Amino acid sequence: MELPTPDQRILGDKARIVKRLRQVVPPDSVIDDGHETLAYECDALTAYRCPPLAVTLPSTTEEVSQILKLCHREGIPVIPRGAGTSLSGGALPTSDSVVVCVSRLNGIIDIDYDSRLVRVQAGRTNLSVTAAVEEDGFFYAPDPSSQLACTIAGNVAMNSGGAHCLKYGVTTNNLLGVRMVLMDGEIVDIGGEFLDSPGLDLLGVVCGSEGQLGIVTEAVLRILPKPEGARPTLIGFSTSEGAASCVADIIGTGVLPVAIEFMDQTCIRACEAFSGAGYPDVEALLIVEVEGSPEEIEYQQGLITQVAWRHNPVEVRQSASAEESQKIWAGRKAAFGAMGQVGDYICLDGTIPVSRLPAALGGIAELSDRYGLQVANVFHAGDGNLHPLILFNANDPAELHKCEELGAEILKLCVREGGCLSGEHGVGVEKRELMTVQFSPADLEMQMRVKDVFDRSWLLNPAKVFPLELSMARRSQ
Amino acid sequence: MELPTPDQRILGDKARIVKRLRQVVPPDSVIDDGHETLAYECDALTAYRCPPLAVTLPSTTEEVSQILKLCHREGIPVIPRGAGTSLSGGALPTSDSVVVCVSRLNGIIDIDYDSRLVRVQAGRTNLSVTAAVEEDGFFYAPDPSSQLACTIAGNVAMNSGGAHCLKYGVTTNNLLGVRMVLMDGEIVDIGGEFLDSPGLDLLGVVCGSEGQLGIVTEAVLRILPKPEGARPTLIGFSTSEGAASCVADIIGTGVLPVAIEFMDQTCIRACEAFSGAGYPDVEALLIVEVEGSPEEIEYQQGLITQVAWRHNPVEVRQSASAEESQKIWAGRKAAFGAMGQVGDYICLDGTIPVSRLPAALGGIAELSDRYGLQVANVFHAGDGNLHPLILFNANDPAELHKCEELGAEILKLCVREGGCLSGEHGVGVEKRELMTVQFSPADLEMQMRVKDVFDRSWLLNPAKVFPLELSMARRSQ
Repeated sequence: MELPTPDQRILGDKARIVKRLRQVVPPDSVIDDGHETLAYECDALTAYRCPPLAVTLPSTTEEVSQILKLCHREGIPVIPRGAGTSLSGGALPTSDSVVVCVSRLNGIIDIDYDSRLVRVQAGRTNLSVTAAVEEDGFFYAPDPSSQLACTIAGNVAMNSGGAHCLKYGVTTNNLLGVRMVLMDGEIVDIGGEFLDSPGLDLLGVVCGSEGQLGIVTEAVLRILPKPEGARPTLIGFSTSEGAASCVADIIGTGVLPVAIEFMDQTCIRACEAFSGAGYPDVEALLIVEVEGSPEEIEYQQGLITQVAWRHNPVEVRQSASAEESQKIWAGRKAAFGAMGQVGDYICLDGTIPVSRLPAALGGIAELSDRYGLQVANVFHAGDGNLHPLILFNANDPAELHKCEELGAEILKLCVREGGCLSGEHGVGVEKRELMTVQFSPADLEMQMRVKDVFDRSWLLNPAKVFPLELSMARRSQ
Repeated sequence: MELPTPDQRILGDKARIVKRLRQVVPPDSVIDDGHETLAYECDALTAYRCPPLAVTLPSTTEEVSQILKLCHREGIPVIPRGAGTSLSGGALPTSDSVVVCVSRLNGIIDIDYDSRLVRVQAGRTNLSVTAAVEEDGFFYAPDPSSQLACTIAGNVAMNSGGAHCLKYGVTTNNLLGVRMVLMDGEIVDIGGEFLDSPGLDLLGVVCGSEGQLGIVTEAVLRILPKPEGARPTLIGFSTSEGAASCVADIIGTGVLPVAIEFMDQTCIRACEAFSGAGYPDVEALLIVEVEGSPEEIEYQQGLITQVAWRHNPVEVRQSASAEESQKIWAGRKAAFGAMGQVGDYICLDGTIPVSRLPAALGGIAELSDRYGLQVANVFHAGDGNLHPLILFNANDPAELHKCEELGAEILKLCVREGGCLSGEHGVGVEKRELMTVQFSPADLEMQMRVKDVFDRSWLLNPAKVFPLELSMARRSQ
């Protein structure tokens, strides 16, 4: 992974830049010590690291604006950062950049149950949004695995999903408005406490823009009433294809589960060893969760079981109690940790139409054989969001390289099957060069011209989303 | 309402332009006869009329592309048109423009139940999308009142809603991708048969862009399983404020009805006279619809009744049969026609946070008194989408003028209450000069720069969405 050549003028001018930053935000909100900036050298894609010039920790939208104004005037690249949980290197610094970390912007501004929305500062963590309203019977739906740590700002940047987005949608379906600071320091409000927006609706393009357009400091979020209850059904299969065709059949039948999770044997065994979830030792497992009143749950579980039996399952196990449900989910939720016990891996993220699930899994197995690297699968099957995990030896540079090649092949397969390069982890640095697989030069040009509108100087979150050569050419224009 | 000065060069060159159009599409797909183009001189905002230079009726995306290429080269403005049901003048021609009507692009391209989506040509009518899948137990959720006539292309352009969007969202929540022709004739695909999209997600900004960015010729739509059943509850109140606070309370309690419709006394009486729905003669009426299995319906109706009794209702009537349900809805669905029997009216469209409903209704009543014009209210209360109807004498130009002023004041009130200028009818020509009430010059500039990206010459759907002076200055740049 190539980083852009740092600007020597900026590197040589660090002392003055840090001094000026300390004039626009409280001095202790600026970190410039080399040891301390190390904590910001990477995000959850730990393979790539680069300590920034300095880190700022603003506490208000106004402070974010002041920092950006300064950086804009001086031509200094800026890296927006939430909790640093990006899996695609979305918060990776460059050595000549200033990190703007929004984690101190973590308050609740307003809760309006009558309009069913909350306004929060965007550095607030995902789970603590729900925590603020759950006693009153509400929740915020998108639930990425990192929800204990990740921020709403990061969720908006990546248009994050989660296990339950089959029913509730991803961030964009639950976002009503943002307050955002543009690279030149201007503060704009996009959307708001209402449905729709007149004129060109820029909220959709801001959501998922990976920090390319501005730094989000506030968000208006839709909250939903908590369902009465929820129950998973566990279905084991002797082939992955059987499980995949069962998923398509469930969706096609018209039941709408909140989640359909898929795990293959490698994952099942790892999770079982790690958490003792009581999973059967099968080739593939589905966890299908439904929710509602007890009667409604029973009715939906009945339908799902009926569909499942058409696909030759080895086992169908309906959870009958809260304890049983918790145990089933404990295994799935520990999957990424459990796989870490098996070995080093990289986690991919691509999507396909659900009807192409059997074909895609078959294709991945073939590619895995061809490259001689094991691929484990654990993913949100209901909405066609794949997360193949490629196992490899991180201490062997040749194997890392092979692993990256296989990853690229698997993502190209997703695009060929009518899907796309990224479901919920974003493009970041990881997939920027693959954007040409998904988009024509004209498509990319159109996207880059939209970036121009918001950040003409291309200083915001550099070297990401677009192929490096294209974005660097843009900055020097 | 001012139209831009037509381009005399184009008007004088009509014969040659029509001849060239007949070279790129079949000759009978071009209408240039003055009597026949009259049918395209306005949309459902019939107060404003202007016959176009010519009308084209392409049958393929390629034909749309050829027409746009020609117009782009010759500098001729283009008016995209679906079924012409816009209530904001979104399809109003200029005399120097070519109308591109997509109504012949009306096929179903693909139905994929396993992925729960359909791909249609965008000239297909809204209701006929549901017709194509309903035997298999599915439906397309957005349901504007004009759904029998209006096209998906128009729905995408206006981000259309409908009575049931409280639960299912508006067009943007049910749209996965589009094929679109840009003003220079280029054909682009945005989004597709999958969740989310890598890079900048342009689908959100295309949806609701009112034909400013391109002409949509295909759309990928999410379809949903039909609920088992649905039942309305009718609740009568002696004050509008009582009904409004009941709406906020229902939303705040956490039940999620599919629809909450509001009607005031003027509307109730008109509907009753027109359709004999059996409505009580009260100050304000709510129709609250819930859906699901019989048990679920009963449970939700129980909760709603409980909430309703806290707000001193005059009457609470739960529908107990399909016939009763149909009768209750028949009145509401005939509201706009029934009001036409009472007198001339203009129908406004603004949104507010649901919690501001009582304040907004109070404010509208005050304004109505001050202007001496009667205002009737019938609207989607659950999501804060107001449709005040101002009654006036269309034969009295002074009264039309007063009516327009009152309309502007009511929409400004919506913005002051934290809402916005347009819920589902769009800005069109009707509200373009009010955009400055909602947006700062910097906000508008940002939107116009996004328009630049797609239509640099500002030839597509001119004189709409943005204040006339701003958009005309843009074209001459």
